[in-house]
Amino acid sequence: MSFEGRDILSTEDMNKEDILEIMAVTARMEDLFRTQHVSDLLADKMVAVIFLEPSTRTRLSFETAIKRLGAKSITVADAKTSSAAKGETLADTARTIEGYVDCIVVRQPMLGGAKVMADAVSIPVINGGDGPGQHPTQALLDLYTIQNEKGGLEGHKVAMVGDLKYGRTVHSLSYALAPFAPEEYIFCAPDALQMPDQIVANMKEKGITCRKTDKIEEALQADVLYMTRIQKERFDDPAEYERLKGSYILTRDILEKGNREITIMHPLPRVDEISTDVDALPNAAYFRQAHNGVFLRMALLAMVMGRA
Amino acid sequence: MSFEGRDILSTEDMNKEDILEIMAVTARMEDLFRTQHVSDLLADKMVAVIFLEPSTRTRLSFETAIKRLGAKSITVADAKTSSAAKGETLADTARTIEGYVDCIVVRQPMLGGAKVMADAVSIPVINGGDGPGQHPTQALLDLYTIQNEKGGLEGHKVAMVGDLKYGRTVHSLSYALAPFAPEEYIFCAPDALQMPDQIVANMKEKGITCRKTDKIEEALQADVLYMTRIQKERFDDPAEYERLKGSYILTRDILEKGNREITIMHPLPRVDEISTDVDALPNAAYFRQAHNGVFLRMALLAMVMGRA
Amino acid sequence: MSFEGRDILSTEDMNKEDILEIMAVTARMEDLFRTQHVSDLLADKMVAVIFLEPSTRTRLSFETAIKRLGAKSITVADAKTSSAAKGETLADTARTIEGYVDCIVVRQPMLGGAKVMADAVSIPVINGGDGPGQHPTQALLDLYTIQNEKGGLEGHKVAMVGDLKYGRTVHSLSYALAPFAPEEYIFCAPDALQMPDQIVANMKEKGITCRKTDKIEEALQADVLYMTRIQKERFDDPAEYERLKGSYILTRDILEKGNREITIMHPLPRVDEISTDVDALPNAAYFRQAHNGVFLRMALLAMVMGRA
Repeated sequence: MSFEGRDILSTEDMNKEDILEIMAVTARMEDLFRTQHVSDLLADKMVAVIFLEPSTRTRLSFETAIKRLGAKSITVADAKTSSAAKGETLADTARTIEGYVDCIVVRQPMLGGAKVMADAVSIPVINGGDGPGQHPTQALLDLYTIQNEKGGLEGHKVAMVGDLKYGRTVHSLSYALAPFAPEEYIFCAPDALQMPDQIVANMKEKGITCRKTDKIEEALQADVLYMTRIQKERFDDPAEYERLKGSYILTRDILEKGNREITIMHPLPRVDEISTDVDALPNAAYFRQAHNGVFLRMALLAMVMGRA
Repeated sequence: MSFEGRDILSTEDMNKEDILEIMAVTARMEDLFRTQHVSDLLADKMVAVIFLEPSTRTRLSFETAIKRLGAKSITVADAKTSSAAKGETLADTARTIEGYVDCIVVRQPMLGGAKVMADAVSIPVINGGDGPGQHPTQALLDLYTIQNEKGGLEGHKVAMVGDLKYGRTVHSLSYALAPFAPEEYIFCAPDALQMPDQIVANMKEKGITCRKTDKIEEALQADVLYMTRIQKERFDDPAEYERLKGSYILTRDILEKGNREITIMHPLPRVDEISTDVDALPNAAYFRQAHNGVFLRMALLAMVMGRA
Repeated sequence: MSFEGRDILSTEDMNKEDILEIMAVTARMEDLFRTQHVSDLLADKMVAVIFLEPSTRTRLSFETAIKRLGAKSITVADAKTSSAAKGETLADTARTIEGYVDCIVVRQPMLGGAKVMADAVSIPVINGGDGPGQHPTQALLDLYTIQNEKGGLEGHKVAMVGDLKYGRTVHSLSYALAPFAPEEYIFCAPDALQMPDQIVANMKEKGITCRKTDKIEEALQADVLYMTRIQKERFDDPAEYERLKGSYILTRDILEKGNREITIMHPLPRVDEISTDVDALPNAAYFRQAHNGVFLRMALLAMVMGRA
């Protein structure tokens, strides 16, 4: 019950025990989803889903979680129609909505914005992404996926591929998985998009072996392959982008050079960094990963509202 | 039960028996709506309503159908806030949402887009309009309206008026009603907007008498008068539009020259092609037609999810 | 039961008895909200929430009220995706939606637009704001707040501060509170934004003492202080705006010069016209006022649908 009333702002607030508790409740929620489809666990609750920047996937995943638990939601899906557009502060928005609902899920572009809202109200706030900051539900669903696909969280060799410099998900995953004694982190990216030195140093301090490479073949030897998209906008020189992007596209052919049991993950949406012929492989886990987001969010909602 | 798990992509997939089964279930759904208002037939189901192009009327009609059956919905009402805007394919969107819900309703502008989504997933997909392609729920609610207003589907003389060249609804209606031995189709339009020759030829092959005219007086002799809007954008010469549009405006005065029992239909929204003084006539069926859309969509949702 | 089937278009339609009945039902709804959280009073009802101009706060408040009563809603949150964008009249929109739901809540920018819709249909219509016209649920929640904070509606000295010329809420409040024998209205604004003479004359005819001032110190002697925002756009001369706005900003310091029991209200959103250090005062009622909007809207919904 330790999560009742707690805000979910970042996985950095969480210790290993917290994460394991969340994993256990998520597994129970997956079971609830598969057996009851719609439960009445939160039938007397309402949740506000406030998305001040667009993210259909995350929003729909939260709304599914809310409704599968029998709760009701009110939604802002578009910043332009919100009071924020009239100059209202996040704290005032939160204090107003506090009178309507039992929990707030918020995504907005300002670093630390979810914490501002959480500090303003006494109901729990779940951070659905605060710009360049945290996206804790993504990190936790990534962990749940690794646990499900690999049978546990401990001791994996995890490769992260693509844009490791700006990619929020790979930063969060690095930290969130760190307590589970990963055998190695393989950071695979072009030099210009490599994992920030500070994060690599932090991981080494935690005793994790870290390897930087720009060759995807090295990444393919891992247990878990976490692909991300390389965005053209990140490059000063478009020609450089064109030259590099092909090196980080996953195909069936290239996968044959690596660990055939490798679990392939991606936060989605993908554009072309994973070839669609990969989708049918049993170890292509990225759609299951997206579906796990519903179970994970059901777990957090039930936990912070004291029902799990 | 033959509809369980089936996609609803086009009425062209349907035989006469299919259509009659849908009509029968729709009648039961109308009864359910009128007696119970909200039922729990689909209380354990969730439906995604993905509208990547705006259509408030169709969206609200589907959402009403979903909620009147006790199901829950998640909605995308605006393409700009969707993952599609980040370059995701329709197939990927469908595969992600497949993990959230039991059925997908989709409207999007690409011909064949609903089929792409249906092919990507194992849950049923209902096409809410795919650009220049199909809009099967409109065609089926039109049939249900004719059945209700006329006491049956067989043997009617049906006039279609307005923009028959680009009007998707009149194309679909022509095909959907064809198995029910219509006495005659009267295609009433200015030459530039007449029914495509291919469709007229197809109807004749099916043994249906077809007449083309540009005089609305001929259309008024029918049993059913299906009005559509003539859009200014369809004309190269604005003066031509101004000259013609008045000829295809339905008023009380002009109706007195025709069959006084004629059932007046329109897919709505209308602009000025039916004078509002027509609304009070007992045979002005267009608002009932819109309301029938809810019953028809309830029927399809219940059928494809195996509950009707 | 006199409210069953009635439209809520304006508080000007209401007599003192009507208002007192609404206050009594609102108090019961507040109790229902606090004890049951979600009730099933309207479990067989559906409500359309049609917002053709953005107003997140009002929309979310209505949707909360609908869902806390167990009813279901369909929502248009964005004018651009609506049929209105295709040239449909408000009357046609209303007649179509009438077949879907049991009640329509509408906000749109045209003066009298809610009445146009109400006249077109037989289900009740609640006006959520019609441009420069009425916003009756705001006026009624303001009354409910005064009643709760002060223990009754009769005989108060009420100061209104800020933009009294264009501020719809202060106009409505003046009329709505008039039957309850206010001791005095203090209209506090810069000359250019003072309460219209017509309204002041109307209030005097009703026997209410009215005072105009441009000094906020006078307003602070009232029982109730109703703050509103001064908008820069209202001034021809930006320098004039800059000079004046500071005079109408409420701070803890300035409040110490007035009645320490004064109830501070604001329709929200605020920008900077109330300093955030005021929020913690026990008599800062503006967030409670926003929360009261849910109870008031629950009351109206239940009343017009014959359940209260």
